[in-house]
Amino acid sequence: MALMLMAMDAQSDDLRIPIAISGRHAHLCQGTIDALFGPGYQLKLRNPLKQVGQYGAKETIALVGPHGRIEHVRVLGPPRSEDQIEISRTDEVTLGLPAPLRISGDLRDTPGVTLEGPRGRVSLTGGLVCALRHIHMSPADAVRLGVHDHDVVRVAVDGARQVVFGNVVVRVADAYRLELHLDTDEGNAAGVEPGTTARILRS
Amino acid sequence: MALMLMAMDAQSDDLRIPIAISGRHAHLCQGTIDALFGPGYQLKLRNPLKQVGQYGAKETIALVGPHGRIEHVRVLGPPRSEDQIEISRTDEVTLGLPAPLRISGDLRDTPGVTLEGPRGRVSLTGGLVCALRHIHMSPADAVRLGVHDHDVVRVAVDGARQVVFGNVVVRVADAYRLELHLDTDEGNAAGVEPGTTARILRS
Repeated sequence: MALMLMAMDAQSDDLRIPIAISGRHAHLCQGTIDALFGPGYQLKLRNPLKQVGQYGAKETIALVGPHGRIEHVRVLGPPRSEDQIEISRTDEVTLGLPAPLRISGDLRDTPGVTLEGPRGRVSLTGGLVCALRHIHMSPADAVRLGVHDHDVVRVAVDGARQVVFGNVVVRVADAYRLELHLDTDEGNAAGVEPGTTARILRS
Repeated sequence: MALMLMAMDAQSDDLRIPIAISGRHAHLCQGTIDALFGPGYQLKLRNPLKQVGQYGAKETIALVGPHGRIEHVRVLGPPRSEDQIEISRTDEVTLGLPAPLRISGDLRDTPGVTLEGPRGRVSLTGGLVCALRHIHMSPADAVRLGVHDHDVVRVAVDGARQVVFGNVVVRVADAYRLELHLDTDEGNAAGVEPGTTARILRS
């Protein structure tokens, strides 16, 4: 058995899926923003994200757990109705907190974490998750790729650290732009570099 | 398309491969041990590893790169003929040093890193790598699993973070015991927990 390459699907370049590596980050509700940054504080735009209307804010916070703390965690905007803190398994170990694997917005029975900002400290009672890998796409992309909202697909990332990720959730909405979201552990494990793309496997 | 599970190969339990997650660690030559811990220093056994004759030593060192340092990096024994420092992609970012993906022992054109011990500091001119994932096994295991030394296979790890790793190198030797070695990024990306096993895919 010599070097085995995974069979390439016959796919044209326009079926290639850009990859975004999500570092640890925080979605905050306005009440939490008030507590951490001061009453009525408005997040400041740092960089727009590919998903329409979403942005990295200039603000960062610290996460504090029983085993350690993580500084400079990016806040994403706009504010949401619920706090959601997304970390990697590596971060779990640093904090000493278990973050269940969840799709964004599914926060039932998730643990809390303590947040620190320049003006205050908030101990959340829930909202700490490790994001389930997923692909954002528009309805037109979904037609082109032959998938539907909530489908669970397999996705290949080729290269020296070639990986096929199972259990990748498809999320379709008008505001979404085609992008596979992996966390830092997943991106590192697959050797993702700027420009690396993914492809949905048919089977 | 509903939840797609990767097709299970018809394999009996005895083809399951135990997984070991390799944290960052250092294999050192005696000269480097002398420089870091004092002339003629002998590594002390902390815990035997599954690979025959290998052990975690009580000694740890610090790694120092241009962007940062990592403390408490475990030294493995026995001493080797060459220094080899194995880190993850996450650690690369912390140190600010690029670690090429290599199979153990292949240290040509690898970058150096600075090591600190209780008695001294050594700036290596090479030896920093990110270990290529691999499976250790005995000749009998190789026969049972139908593979050969240096084969490159695909390996599935099932679970909520189901992953198929491509480019996994098979290493066969009398002293080897059946074990898939992943680094911490890879283990996290695949949701590996104590007792998680892997299986070689046929294709």
